[in-house]
Amino acid sequence: MSSLKGTAVVAHGGGPTQVINASLAGVIEECARHAEITALYGACHGIAGVIEEKLLDLGNQETALAAAIAQTPGSALGSCRRKVSAADYDRILAVFRAHDVRYFFYNGGNDSMDTALRISEMAREQNYEMRVIGIPKTIDNDLAETDHCPGYGSAARFIACALRDIGEDNRSLPTPITVVEVMGRNAGWLVAATSLARAQPDDAPHLIYFPERPISEDQFVADVQSVYRRLGRCVVAVCEGQLNVKGEPFGADMVKADGFQHKLAGNLAHKLAQLISSRLGLRARSEKPGLLGRSSAEFVSVVDREEARRCGQAAVRAAMEGITDKMVTLVREPGPAYACGTGLAGFEKVANAERLFPLEWINVAANDVLPPFRAYVAPLAGPIRAHPHLARVMVPAAAPAR
Amino acid sequence: MSSLKGTAVVAHGGGPTQVINASLAGVIEECARHAEITALYGACHGIAGVIEEKLLDLGNQETALAAAIAQTPGSALGSCRRKVSAADYDRILAVFRAHDVRYFFYNGGNDSMDTALRISEMAREQNYEMRVIGIPKTIDNDLAETDHCPGYGSAARFIACALRDIGEDNRSLPTPITVVEVMGRNAGWLVAATSLARAQPDDAPHLIYFPERPISEDQFVADVQSVYRRLGRCVVAVCEGQLNVKGEPFGADMVKADGFQHKLAGNLAHKLAQLISSRLGLRARSEKPGLLGRSSAEFVSVVDREEARRCGQAAVRAAMEGITDKMVTLVREPGPAYACGTGLAGFEKVANAERLFPLEWINVAANDVLPPFRAYVAPLAGPIRAHPHLARVMVPAAAPAR
Repeated sequence: MSSLKGTAVVAHGGGPTQVINASLAGVIEECARHAEITALYGACHGIAGVIEEKLLDLGNQETALAAAIAQTPGSALGSCRRKVSAADYDRILAVFRAHDVRYFFYNGGNDSMDTALRISEMAREQNYEMRVIGIPKTIDNDLAETDHCPGYGSAARFIACALRDIGEDNRSLPTPITVVEVMGRNAGWLVAATSLARAQPDDAPHLIYFPERPISEDQFVADVQSVYRRLGRCVVAVCEGQLNVKGEPFGADMVKADGFQHKLAGNLAHKLAQLISSRLGLRARSEKPGLLGRSSAEFVSVVDREEARRCGQAAVRAAMEGITDKMVTLVREPGPAYACGTGLAGFEKVANAERLFPLEWINVAANDVLPPFRAYVAPLAGPIRAHPHLARVMVPAAAPAR
Repeated sequence: MSSLKGTAVVAHGGGPTQVINASLAGVIEECARHAEITALYGACHGIAGVIEEKLLDLGNQETALAAAIAQTPGSALGSCRRKVSAADYDRILAVFRAHDVRYFFYNGGNDSMDTALRISEMAREQNYEMRVIGIPKTIDNDLAETDHCPGYGSAARFIACALRDIGEDNRSLPTPITVVEVMGRNAGWLVAATSLARAQPDDAPHLIYFPERPISEDQFVADVQSVYRRLGRCVVAVCEGQLNVKGEPFGADMVKADGFQHKLAGNLAHKLAQLISSRLGLRARSEKPGLLGRSSAEFVSVVDREEARRCGQAAVRAAMEGITDKMVTLVREPGPAYACGTGLAGFEKVANAERLFPLEWINVAANDVLPPFRAYVAPLAGPIRAHPHLARVMVPAAAPAR
């Protein structure tokens, strides 16, 4: 049991997820169980809220609200992307001292874990006793040391269903090519998840590209042409961070000799649709589901939400046990049925590290996932309904030839 | 009872909706009840499937499949946007004769009803007895003579939830302005529906623009500035067909004297975000949910799906009663509780007509809906959960001034 009494502060860093508020609910619930925690404050808009001393009293909320907040997207506290300066760290400690803050729970990605580590180091330098625990969060799933990140399962569920439904739309109309841009920054975890709802060989997406496997524009066009020749249509999923073979952002320089002399405009999906129209003469449209990928409340994975909550609870319990400078991790248990516990990893192993999509889960052609990925992701996203199709029983021709 | 025996053909026209397959299920189910209908074929990819004699045997499907198909997005038959030529009409009649087609059910928008009317007229000219009935369909809700269109309720549900969730994301991060582009062509029905999930005065969207009310770029910028001053943020919903005061597409010509000399690039939302950044110096992002607005299966409104199905059934029943040249309509019953039956309207009243959003449901400032619209749309979209928020109980400042 912890003998350190004082205030706890919880803050969010980086972009929200569909379940970051479930982690917040876990923190609120668990803090209420420990008498050592004399007050719980939420920093408004992340670490900026500490620096500006904008703190929300989370002990002063209606009892049922934590559970209700767990169901909401966005960040209930507000978040930020602020780079913290040396002077800021002094200020953070001054605010913590003024409110007798002895516990700091930072829910974010690798940048946030770096900030958390520095806060803890500065507290030690100043002989101010406190415990700092990180709670993982990112739809991109690119944090080191954890099997997966809270937020990823729901974002994977959204994008899998999005490609399933966009695929049905693509099947319906004579615009044969649809290019969909998927979040994920430098990591292919989310774009890989677009494969999850496929049930039939001709289901979308037909091509998936990963930042971890740079491709040439020529290869991209050839891939699309090949699928089009086979199916008469093609749905492509591409990560926003896709690179070309020069290591540049894909589409940065697509000036070609074959009559395609202008720089391509718009977002990546739009550029790729333009490229396909120009090179293959096919009608192509682009889609960018954007913010809905991390906020659409109807696509929350139950497993993801529950794990996010447990990560919040585990952070508080670790601090109560006297632990500091660790991020909570998710640890998948071996065995055929999905089960996942929590563990801890040192901030230094997580801060500023980036876990990319495994190359061994990408096919040789660098345009699809391999089966082991499905086994990894399916329990995180939860069951997804496949759409049935009419049997293609054609009526024999009877009309006179035209 | 009908004494006309023969084959029935059902076809889809225009873009799919989340519930067009529910109307197809209604046609399949009802046709099975009438011995006069000796076979039921589905035209592959709309009227093009008739012209090319690509017909799917819908009597030869598993019994449970119609019900299953009713749950799917896209068009299970395939659709098209083909303009039908004079020669095509001859060919359509030739194919109908060859297969003894006496019933034609065309599920589409106003263009499709025009095509249906011409087919029927040509059949009469050629003394070929047949009955042609239209089934309404459009997410845009712009068909005349019907209280609303199957497809609109689900698309309204999607976009209301999208703005609700994008609004939570906007609330979370310090990028204060988000502009969301909404489908709807020339009609403001869908952009109006973005208001539906608002529960608190500061909920998104804060501004809604309608093609029926052209606005100037200056007015737009002033509106955003006004909301930003009040709330520190602003979420804007704008219809893809928005016009400026010259009657041009909004953003077509935004070259301004105040240092903003280049033409704006990208889609409408992207242009407006650029305009805000340039004129107000505020960070702005753009979102375009796109195809998901008509295909996302998780957002189907139960009322919409059921009504779509009933429209399919009503079309077959009307034909059985000897009726032709009519489109099924939805007729809202008067009274406080929502109830809706079906009616019929002549093709000539629907074909090529367009029902715009009522000006009396738009506020004087031309940037929001008025309450009667909510009463109209709420039962069509179904109940939508609002997101709760933490009480803003701030902790008193205690740290030394910086």
